[in-house]
This record gives sequence, C-alpha cells and structure tokens, in this order.
Amino acid sequence: MQEPNDRRKSRRRFLAGAAGIAAAAPLKALADNLQNQPPNVPEWTHTLGDGVGVRPYGTPSKYEKGVVRRTVPWLTATPESSVSFTPLHALEGIITPNGVCFERHHSGVAEIDPADHRLMLHGLVDKPLIFTLGDIERFPRVNKIYFLECAANTGMEWRGAQLNGCQYTHGMVHCVQYTGVPLKTLLNEAGLKPNAKWILAEGADAAAMTRSIPLDKALDDCLVAYRMNGERLRPENGYPLRLVVPGWEGNVWIKWLRRIKIGDEPWFTREETSKYTDLLENGKARQFTWVMDAKSVITSPSPQTGPVQKGFTGLSGLAWSGRGKIDRVDVSLDGGRNWRTARIDGPIFDKACVRFYYEFDWNGDALLLQSRAMDETGYVQPSKSELRKIRGVNSIYHNNGIQTWHLKPDGEVENVEVG
Amino acid sequence: MQEPNDRRKSRRRFLAGAAGIAAAAPLKALADNLQNQPPNVPEWTHTLGDGVGVRPYGTPSKYEKGVVRRTVPWLTATPESSVSFTPLHALEGIITPNGVCFERHHSGVAEIDPADHRLMLHGLVDKPLIFTLGDIERFPRVNKIYFLECAANTGMEWRGAQLNGCQYTHGMVHCVQYTGVPLKTLLNEAGLKPNAKWILAEGADAAAMTRSIPLDKALDDCLVAYRMNGERLRPENGYPLRLVVPGWEGNVWIKWLRRIKIGDEPWFTREETSKYTDLLENGKARQFTWVMDAKSVITSPSPQTGPVQKGFTGLSGLAWSGRGKIDRVDVSLDGGRNWRTARIDGPIFDKACVRFYYEFDWNGDALLLQSRAMDETGYVQPSKSELRKIRGVNSIYHNNGIQTWHLKPDGEVENVEVG
Repeated sequence: MQEPNDRRKSRRRFLAGAAGIAAAAPLKALADNLQNQPPNVPEWTHTLGDGVGVRPYGTPSKYEKGVVRRTVPWLTATPESSVSFTPLHALEGIITPNGVCFERHHSGVAEIDPADHRLMLHGLVDKPLIFTLGDIERFPRVNKIYFLECAANTGMEWRGAQLNGCQYTHGMVHCVQYTGVPLKTLLNEAGLKPNAKWILAEGADAAAMTRSIPLDKALDDCLVAYRMNGERLRPENGYPLRLVVPGWEGNVWIKWLRRIKIGDEPWFTREETSKYTDLLENGKARQFTWVMDAKSVITSPSPQTGPVQKGFTGLSGLAWSGRGKIDRVDVSLDGGRNWRTARIDGPIFDKACVRFYYEFDWNGDALLLQSRAMDETGYVQPSKSELRKIRGVNSIYHNNGIQTWHLKPDGEVENVEVG
Repeated sequence: MQEPNDRRKSRRRFLAGAAGIAAAAPLKALADNLQNQPPNVPEWTHTLGDGVGVRPYGTPSKYEKGVVRRTVPWLTATPESSVSFTPLHALEGIITPNGVCFERHHSGVAEIDPADHRLMLHGLVDKPLIFTLGDIERFPRVNKIYFLECAANTGMEWRGAQLNGCQYTHGMVHCVQYTGVPLKTLLNEAGLKPNAKWILAEGADAAAMTRSIPLDKALDDCLVAYRMNGERLRPENGYPLRLVVPGWEGNVWIKWLRRIKIGDEPWFTREETSKYTDLLENGKARQFTWVMDAKSVITSPSPQTGPVQKGFTGLSGLAWSGRGKIDRVDVSLDGGRNWRTARIDGPIFDKACVRFYYEFDWNGDALLLQSRAMDETGYVQPSKSELRKIRGVNSIYHNNGIQTWHLKPDGEVENVEVG
C-alpha cells in the first residue's frame, strides 16, 4: 500500500481527484511496503481489448508463463520414462488446475482413442465382463476430491536437502475432483467368487503398468474415474480411464486402465518387487507400503517465491493424509523448537489436500520455517531425523518428513536440513 | 458391456486368455448395450508414447476438441463485446476447469501487466489507499467455492424455447474455487465514514465497467480475488483482480478491478440504468435485482449429448442458488406432473453449484425431462409460466424458470416449452 501522493519512484498520479488524498495508515507491518505510483489512467483503459476472451479453450495470462510443470532432467534416462512436478509454490487453495497436475509415466503417454478403449474384468468372478467407456458412464457416478501423491515425492530429500523449491521437493502431488463409478459397483456386476482376495490393475500403456491391490480396498473407496475437475482425464493422467485409490501411493492409481483381474493372492509384479519397495538399513525391504502418511509443506514463502519483504507475511501451505482428514497443522518459525497452530481455510475432505495459513510480522531476522500435519487418526508428521532412525536413508519412497525452509535476512529462502 | 465372444462387429479379440469367458449378465438395462469387440492388445500398448506428458502446461486430449466455450455470433455486434458459454453438457462434478469458464466482456479482454495494476479505495473513508497486487496478497486470504452466473443466462428463453443445448440456454454459469482477501478487510484498513452506505466498483478495461453495491453486502462476503482454481485469474475472468460477490449476478463481479469508491447512495451508472434492469409488462423496470434465485438444469441427457440409448440412464445436472445452500433437487420425466427427489453427490457449499443425479431405466417412450431446485430458504425454482405471470416477457435477465428437454423415441433430445 502507499500514500497516493508518494512520488519517490514515479511522477504519474493515479486519478486527478486522488491528488489530495491523505497518507494511508495500513496494518503496521504493511506500511513498509510502499510501491511505485500507479498510472493516472492505465493504458488498457484507453484501448479495446483484443477479443481473445472468446478463445474456445482459454490459457493463463502471458505474465504467468512461469507457472508450469517442470522436470528434473537427470532423474530419468529418457523422456518416455519421466516425471513432471506441480508448481506448488505458485498455486493456492486446494484444487490443482488440470494443466499443471504432476504426472509420472513409464513408457510415454499413451494416446488412446476412447472409442477403441475397453476395460476387462476377469479372474475369480462369476461373469467376466468387458466395458466400453459408454458402458461405464451409464453406471451411477460419484464426485470426490482426493489428493494423489507419488510414492517418490520428496524422495530426493532422504539423504539431505537437495533441490531448492517445493515444486521439486513436494511437487509430485495434486488434488482434483474426480468423477467416476465405484469399483465396487463394477465388481458386484461381475460377481466375486468366495476366494477372491486381491485385484490386479493393468494399464494400456506400453509399460503395461500393473499393481496388486487388496480386495478390501477395492471394495471400500476405489473409483474407476473418467473425469478430473469436470472435464475428461488429461492424456498424461490416464485418459480415458484411471483407477482412483484414495490415500494410496500414486503408482497404484493405474492410468489408461484396461484390465482388472481378481485373484486370491498378490501377483508380485515387477512394480511391486524391484520397484515401489523401501530398502531398510538391514537389507530387508518393506513391501506393499501403499498408504501415504500425513504430510505438509510450506508453499510460500519457499525458495521459488522470490525475496520476502519485511513486515506482515502470509505463510501458506498444503497438508494431506492418506489415512483420513487433516485435523490440525502446526507451523514453526524456529526450526521446530516452538510451534503455533495454523489456520486451515477452505473445506477439509477425507484424503484431500487442505490449505493452511499462518500470518506473522517478519522483522528481518533469519527464520527456520517448518510445518507439521496431524490427521484424524492422531498421527503426527515426523521430523526427517525421526524418520531416518526407523527407515534409514536407502529409501526412495514414503518420505513424509518435516521440511525446513531457511528464510534469510535478505529475504531469500533456501532448502536446509535441521535436526 | 458385452459378452466377450460377441463378434458381430469385429473379428478381433481382447486377450487370448479371454476367448473362453462367459456371457455377461449386467444390470438388466445395460444388457442392451452390446458394443464392438475391443482389440486383442491395443496398438498403444505396442508402442512408446511420445512424451507429451511433460508439456509444461497440459491440454485436453485431441479427442476432446469439441469441449470448448462457444459463442452465439448474432448475440453481439462485435467480438469486443461478446460472451462465450461454458460447455455444461460435457462437464461433470461441480468444479469448472478454468479453460472453459464462460466469460462476458464489454470492451474486449484487457491485457493487464500485473506489476502496473493498482486498486484504489477512496470516497467516504478515513484514509484513501492504493494497493499493488503484492500489497493485497499480504493480507490474510481465504478460499471459497462459488458459482458465478450472468444475469442474462437463459435470457433467450423468455419468449419460448430457443437454442438447442444447455451450453447456450444455461452456459453463462461456472463454479470455481477463488482465493482472495475479504473486501471487508480492505475497507476496514481504509476506515469507513459513518455515512458510508454504498460502494462503486470499477474495472480497468476500456468499458470502465461500474456497478453500485450496498455496503452491507460488501462487508458480508465479498472478496477481492486474484486466483481461481489455485492459479491466477484468467485474463478473460479479470486478471489480475476481480470482485467476487457471492450469489449475485455476474456483472457486479467487476473484473480487472481498479477502483472502489465509498459513497452514501448508489451511482446509477449506465450499467444499472439502461442495462441490468428488468422491464415489466406495465412499462416499469425492476432495478438492483442482484440475487440469482435458485435454478437448475439437466446437463445430460440434453440436446448436445448425442442420442440416448434405451436402458439404464444416468441423468445428471447442476443446481445453484444465490440465497444459500441447495437443499433439494427434484426431477420429472413427464413435464412436471410427477416429481422424484434427485440424488445430490459431492459437497454442498453455500452459493455454489451442486451436482445431482437421477437414474432410471428408459424404455424408449418419449419423455419430458425437467429439474427444479430448492434452497435452504424454502424457495422453489418456478416454472417458466409462473415466472412470466409476474415478470412478463420483456425481460432479458433473471430467467430461472424450469427447463424442459424432450427426449424423443429415437433418443434425440430437444429444447421445448411445456406448460
């Protein structure tokens, strides 16, 4: 905010009638934040806009070109096996726009003609079935807002602070509203044999990505989804069908879903033996570690958000838990010595992201910013050192340790290790 | 669904192992819906995808090119004063993706450099203030999901059924999650004089769009918003700042917001005298009719959704009310003689869209599909004839009458008048 007569940086005035108006007395902390004088009447009020508003499918402003998914080139050998990261530092609220939802693919993005796509249900069922997309859309549908997190999210942090930005440390998560049919409905249609205990879900991409899922979960809250945020799934998110496995690691949310086989034991596919297991210090590996534990990250201030100005500061972040609803989020400004309860704003859904805030007056001293999420089961997000005591540092997956951002006196923010 | 051995339309088989599986016994109504045999192993499982998934900002599948905003060319004289319609018939859930949110502009879409944008608060205040975007973002922020409906939505239906599709009859509505600062916070910062009763909101576009709003509403739930669905407002939706006026007609949600003046009476601007008034039969006009009353529309089946097949049919629709929460939605299959309560699925927010469903088994007889919304105030969406008794047919705005779709025996759906 500024006093309208302040001409230190500009000789232009906002409005002729505003020349005499008095000095502002904003929130004390904001008073430091005087800016340039605005133009008297801005140029865009003098000229007609160009009618781009009627573009059939709109895109962000040209001034927002930096708000995009980004990759870490050295992470994978080829673009056909790659991952892109959600620009969490540049988003707000809990809904991730489809255009910037992170995605991971193992053999490129399958380009599927929906008219030729089928979903087969077979194995330990009374009546094997094959569904077209049209068939699936005729079943009663539901709409659910869920987070989706890659098991490898924050995986690069196991051995210490690595990448300078929450887009890279935590950007393998997004949260959208899905529309689909409960998997239970389709399984009941086929009829389950008494010895049915597991399902195998397979994708139609060239990786033929496959994961085993216990039948209990399949019958609980899994969806066969065909829409995200109202429109069809995006190709990189599984168009035209994906399995939604609420709260569980993203790799079991099989994209381009083409087949579900029902069996009496897991299949021990490549993805659940050589991949998506957690190697412990003693050489043994944890397997079938599906649930994503409670986690949070401060998205702003964070290393990518630009220098922080002194004064009133609105800290913003995201929290989520695969075990249910987020109950509380705490924030520390001193690396975990003292904690304050953050303000959660907006809806709190089961297994969805919540947005939290903590406002404070920054005097320019160095701070160590942290957040910790608690869910309705009583689980508290651990520190990285607590996590390493149990899991060592061989893991790639399931790092939900507390993240620390160092806010330096010059306003820059850096990814650091604490404790 | 189909019996996997059905080869009437294709000689290919889905999977070698599936050749012998038995005939399906789906929901009785779905059994009619046998389709082509799917490919044995689809071509996209044989070849690597092309890595487009790592596009920085993603777009829908090439098979979804028809899901776009559309215009009605004869509605306005030039593209600089135009309106585009949300493809409601092709969406689900309650969140509208930013790319297809309808928009109305009066003098083109202003292309604003956010660094040069300012918001001025002046008039009957203790301390006039000018805010940069950065200033506004430092205030405590909130996230709210609201519908936004143009007062002229469904306006073409006042004199009878006109356009064949809910995109055109009801597509001037969308629903997103906004992030912004309560207007009350900014007004309190400036300090209101005792005689303050109204605000004037002005846009920075070439139309300098201006509307008067009672102070009570401004202090109640209005927001100065800078984000929709997590990312920055789209240019055509007011980038970088718009006023959010929950439940009220869209034209008061001033886009490209640059100025708020506080006064003791309304300004009677062009937009609230010659425009946005409702001309009654007796020659008098209603003015300041801001609230959007409860309304609903069946989005599928609807004229644009393609022929309906006999059997199990999942009717889907949207409902909203500017007076609060939607309490109930009813559906009629016989033009309003008999009503059944629809199933509302997904969250119900204050002044937001809800998604409703009604599933039934269609035997191929002609039907007259209708929906009616009820809100928590007890208000019931009226029939068009009830509405015309009171308001005549001179109006353009505030047509919330019950819409009728004629589902014909051939499965086609048409916009018709009933009663």
